[in-house]
Amino acid sequence: MRAVVFEKWKTPPTVSEVDKPTPGPGEVLLKVAGAGACHSDVAVYQDYDESMGMTQLEPSYILGHETSGWIEELGEGVTGLAKGDAFLVYGPIGCGHCAPCSRGQDTYCENVADMPYMASGLGRDGGMAEYMTVPARNLVPLGDADPYAAAPLADAGLTPYHAIKLSLPKLAGGGKTALVIGLGGLGLVAVQILKAITGATVIATDMKPEAMARAEEFGAVTVPGGEGQADRIRELTGGKGVTAVFDFVGVAPTIALAASVVARQGRLTVVGIAGGEFAWNFFKVPYEVDFTSTYWGTIEELHEVAALYRAGQISPDVEYYEMDDALEAYRKLEAGELSGRAVVTPNGRAA
Amino acid sequence: MRAVVFEKWKTPPTVSEVDKPTPGPGEVLLKVAGAGACHSDVAVYQDYDESMGMTQLEPSYILGHETSGWIEELGEGVTGLAKGDAFLVYGPIGCGHCAPCSRGQDTYCENVADMPYMASGLGRDGGMAEYMTVPARNLVPLGDADPYAAAPLADAGLTPYHAIKLSLPKLAGGGKTALVIGLGGLGLVAVQILKAITGATVIATDMKPEAMARAEEFGAVTVPGGEGQADRIRELTGGKGVTAVFDFVGVAPTIALAASVVARQGRLTVVGIAGGEFAWNFFKVPYEVDFTSTYWGTIEELHEVAALYRAGQISPDVEYYEMDDALEAYRKLEAGELSGRAVVTPNGRAA
Amino acid sequence: MRAVVFEKWKTPPTVSEVDKPTPGPGEVLLKVAGAGACHSDVAVYQDYDESMGMTQLEPSYILGHETSGWIEELGEGVTGLAKGDAFLVYGPIGCGHCAPCSRGQDTYCENVADMPYMASGLGRDGGMAEYMTVPARNLVPLGDADPYAAAPLADAGLTPYHAIKLSLPKLAGGGKTALVIGLGGLGLVAVQILKAITGATVIATDMKPEAMARAEEFGAVTVPGGEGQADRIRELTGGKGVTAVFDFVGVAPTIALAASVVARQGRLTVVGIAGGEFAWNFFKVPYEVDFTSTYWGTIEELHEVAALYRAGQISPDVEYYEMDDALEAYRKLEAGELSGRAVVTPNGRAA
Amino acid sequence: MRAVVFEKWKTPPTVSEVDKPTPGPGEVLLKVAGAGACHSDVAVYQDYDESMGMTQLEPSYILGHETSGWIEELGEGVTGLAKGDAFLVYGPIGCGHCAPCSRGQDTYCENVADMPYMASGLGRDGGMAEYMTVPARNLVPLGDADPYAAAPLADAGLTPYHAIKLSLPKLAGGGKTALVIGLGGLGLVAVQILKAITGATVIATDMKPEAMARAEEFGAVTVPGGEGQADRIRELTGGKGVTAVFDFVGVAPTIALAASVVARQGRLTVVGIAGGEFAWNFFKVPYEVDFTSTYWGTIEELHEVAALYRAGQISPDVEYYEMDDALEAYRKLEAGELSGRAVVTPNGRAA
Repeated sequence: MRAVVFEKWKTPPTVSEVDKPTPGPGEVLLKVAGAGACHSDVAVYQDYDESMGMTQLEPSYILGHETSGWIEELGEGVTGLAKGDAFLVYGPIGCGHCAPCSRGQDTYCENVADMPYMASGLGRDGGMAEYMTVPARNLVPLGDADPYAAAPLADAGLTPYHAIKLSLPKLAGGGKTALVIGLGGLGLVAVQILKAITGATVIATDMKPEAMARAEEFGAVTVPGGEGQADRIRELTGGKGVTAVFDFVGVAPTIALAASVVARQGRLTVVGIAGGEFAWNFFKVPYEVDFTSTYWGTIEELHEVAALYRAGQISPDVEYYEMDDALEAYRKLEAGELSGRAVVTPNGRAA
Repeated sequence: MRAVVFEKWKTPPTVSEVDKPTPGPGEVLLKVAGAGACHSDVAVYQDYDESMGMTQLEPSYILGHETSGWIEELGEGVTGLAKGDAFLVYGPIGCGHCAPCSRGQDTYCENVADMPYMASGLGRDGGMAEYMTVPARNLVPLGDADPYAAAPLADAGLTPYHAIKLSLPKLAGGGKTALVIGLGGLGLVAVQILKAITGATVIATDMKPEAMARAEEFGAVTVPGGEGQADRIRELTGGKGVTAVFDFVGVAPTIALAASVVARQGRLTVVGIAGGEFAWNFFKVPYEVDFTSTYWGTIEELHEVAALYRAGQISPDVEYYEMDDALEAYRKLEAGELSGRAVVTPNGRAA
Repeated sequence: MRAVVFEKWKTPPTVSEVDKPTPGPGEVLLKVAGAGACHSDVAVYQDYDESMGMTQLEPSYILGHETSGWIEELGEGVTGLAKGDAFLVYGPIGCGHCAPCSRGQDTYCENVADMPYMASGLGRDGGMAEYMTVPARNLVPLGDADPYAAAPLADAGLTPYHAIKLSLPKLAGGGKTALVIGLGGLGLVAVQILKAITGATVIATDMKPEAMARAEEFGAVTVPGGEGQADRIRELTGGKGVTAVFDFVGVAPTIALAASVVARQGRLTVVGIAGGEFAWNFFKVPYEVDFTSTYWGTIEELHEVAALYRAGQISPDVEYYEMDDALEAYRKLEAGELSGRAVVTPNGRAA
Repeated sequence: MRAVVFEKWKTPPTVSEVDKPTPGPGEVLLKVAGAGACHSDVAVYQDYDESMGMTQLEPSYILGHETSGWIEELGEGVTGLAKGDAFLVYGPIGCGHCAPCSRGQDTYCENVADMPYMASGLGRDGGMAEYMTVPARNLVPLGDADPYAAAPLADAGLTPYHAIKLSLPKLAGGGKTALVIGLGGLGLVAVQILKAITGATVIATDMKPEAMARAEEFGAVTVPGGEGQADRIRELTGGKGVTAVFDFVGVAPTIALAASVVARQGRLTVVGIAGGEFAWNFFKVPYEVDFTSTYWGTIEELHEVAALYRAGQISPDVEYYEMDDALEAYRKLEAGELSGRAVVTPNGRAA
């Protein structure tokens, strides 16, 4: 079968012919519907190398940690799942027997240091291929919903969902506000999730006018960058500040903006991994603000994301690419030329 | 001034001429915009008497515990409030110095036995008059929103809101369902609140087709009574049962319906005070269902209700009555002839 | 090897010679340290039969759903676990790929109807044997703590812990009270857990004076049954009622007692499965009491129970029985002659 | 009567003869039992001046925001409180009619800019006098407990309690750890509260050996400063990091220590107002740590603190000073010579 293989550190992936895999005990073989291309793929093949000690990410393996597909074959011991049904794939795979793994939060596996990979597509063969193997517990049913457009939900949906879910106690009830900074793939899904599951006024900001327009279509009030940005945001909150801020960029200026508008007793989540610094000080951030970060999510949360998608409450913007064009998808991603999430469909759209 | 006065146990109120009140220290004088007529008023003047020991409700006093209006005069020591501004009135008034009162939950005042009244319009002069006095802390600002239609929010809005807010941890996120049983004044606001602040699929049921139609306009899926009702509700939840059930009737059959459709680990709140019985048994209700009741709400929650109203997220259906027609409003309420909440406007609509 | 085998409905188990099992993929072989005898075992072999439709519990299999032991052998694909290390066994085993299983709450597996068993020792071979097989994810490390006395924690520890953990939001902070009704194996561990992880005043009640004395040693205030019991309990709460009640009996009189002393906004959890009925009515239970039930717990909670045990914060009372005396342990359990949890040690105490 | 009066910016207080106050409507006159001396008093009279714009703190007024006493006289309209009963005083006093005030969190009054004072003893006459006036809602009953030693609880008890209460969701259950940095008056009460209401292992650290010894008496494990401090703390958590860190100092090195030992998904609360800076960065603090601050607490929380004190679960270390020695108490406080909280007893200890 054909697959997008990451073969060597600091080297772009190639589309190669590889063996079709066989599911082990407790696994299924998935025929891939869609596989999303993600910025972190680019970071892994462009920026990382052996000096960083991330042995779990060492090539060679097939990329793709945002995958959907249909069960093609059940491995030994797998019951209660039917061939032909469509699923999302929860990417992270931990040791399976520590406390975080037991609650379906493999992202925080306590034995990660001893694991040979972090996730499907990140150290272990992922979804940018005609077929992949997946542990049965990592499957989330999609029912009758479109499996192609679903693919990005596995990361670009789950990551904002997890951040928002941790903020729900603050956003509960009437009179609350949320701010989304950065309206790329994750930020635009964040706007949709916030509109779907909270009563908050959703404010959104980005450099790109078309991203702002899209956020407005999803129900957000937008505020452009530049002078007066923080004042305008604060004004939209009736002067009280923003209850929950989500920064999908994470550079120093966006974090500073976030801190300047968050409300007392609010929550500020940095989602973007640009690594910006913020000089925290008791008197510079309002009292009792939870200043925090986030990372991907849990299996159960992906079930909840799938429920929102199946009910039509959220839908990621996507652009489809055949396997022949997979590397072009990555090129556009690197160049910032995509307007939706690039989804590679290794078996075609009519599969 | 004219007022709707409840003068004697077991006796309907009359419209009488009474003295305009004077605000005490810490109080304001409110010029009334609207005062909602509530089923509990009817219970108090029709069913209660001295034998029940509810000394706090002993007549004579002016009815009206769902009130809105404008500040006309500030009592001694009141600062930070401006004449002419519009407010909702939080009805309950407790001792003010116990723990529940300190958190603005006067409904659960620990010294209620020693109090001369329970609430404005329930033992203390209420809003069915041209003017009333209100402790400053019981005022909730309405800003520019229509103060007339706001009146019912003080009870018909706050009571479902409080019940729903206590259920929010269960309703958080995607894939959740809520069921509203009974689509009178409170039930229809409950549908609006659930749609506004949760992502749940809202199911609604009632005997009256026109109430069902209204619930659908507010975004609910409706299920008629009769055979197959529980099965149909369960089907709408994908067979998992309802995450959070709200029974606004509270007779034995509605509670039985609620218990038969609630999901494992769900929540079942009886809001209606019809006093129906349910034979609870470990094996008859799914595991870990919180079977509970509710009563009115807190001052802060009324601020949150007002925020939803001011943002246009909820709006109670109302019918206006001039003071001359106030008793007619109660007559229709008793007869079940109202299709919205009856709001008496003692100073007229153009005040 | 020798094992306590439940062979036929309505028939007591026997100690029989059976084959030593072999661990499948993802499983380990455990050399058993201790296996607790539980009332539910007795119910299964005495009261149940095929007419109840509990196909998951159909004999024949080895009993024992409260087990501890040491890893003897690793099955295919199991890594990160070391031979000789001691573990508690989380009993429930669900499909592994539904949402509840994904969060380690196999008790609420959505595919239970299709499962061939419910738990180790309940449909699948359990711990009353020299060896047993266990899925790796069901293992909870015991470190250096005594593995023999730990065995009962898997149910008699986890069940009260789960009920208490769900009540912690109510019990948070100062001035709270808890009531434990029924001081058998689970009730006495409940007292220890409540003292260890909350600041609540713990009140306990039972028929047996020696159980009451033991509860006092664990820090509870005890109240005898009979006239004035509810008044005395209420008095200990300063008249406010009990914040969180745990009924480990579950007959009608104990549930009635629980409902008569629970505080407004409190929580009442029926843990005991005696199936008593309570005629719930809006006016008979204080406002906003969460009237609820509970069932076993999650894998992560068993990790937390183990942490309390390893830190010396809780320790179940046990009586040890060699395999030769296993049936005598069940006889005493049936006769109510045990004063601690009976733990069978199939490999002896000096293993 | 005699009182400790702060008369001018940048000027130490004096003991002066002033008029005995008269309670206004809704207030009581309190005969003072004890009044704690607090570091923030020193900051106010030593460091602040008109240039800081804190008009609410402008002298002249009587100091003392940690007060206990007995009701001497009831103002107009106050009912349900009895002369001679003992109370703690909740210090903060807001507008009384905004949402935060309605929930008893006057610290976050939305109209603070228009208020003439912040709290009793901070802008308004406080407890360092024979008598003071207090709004009835600010009184928290002490029952039969010693009112003298209770005084510091109003701040040195409430401040750590509030910080800990916000951390309880993280500290719930078994296997959790807490770290207290800085064992002055607040830190030592924090240790007591953590031991009383959580099951966490409490780790404590300070420069002073005698403070460390006291923390050990209260049940903490102590770790000295210097090389290996962070490693030793982390080791005590089994390598997982600290679930909830409380920094009662708040200089850059203590915040850096806190951030270096906090666990993934933990909580780090800076309580001390030394204003130290921390360069927050996505990769420097573990995932999902809530990095936050705190300020005093709510009226209801002071009821809960009083409950812990009345039950003997916490007790602040105090040193008593007669009114004649009040300035000596402040001198020792400034010089760091106190080993407990200095409590001035304006009416003597035998009052």
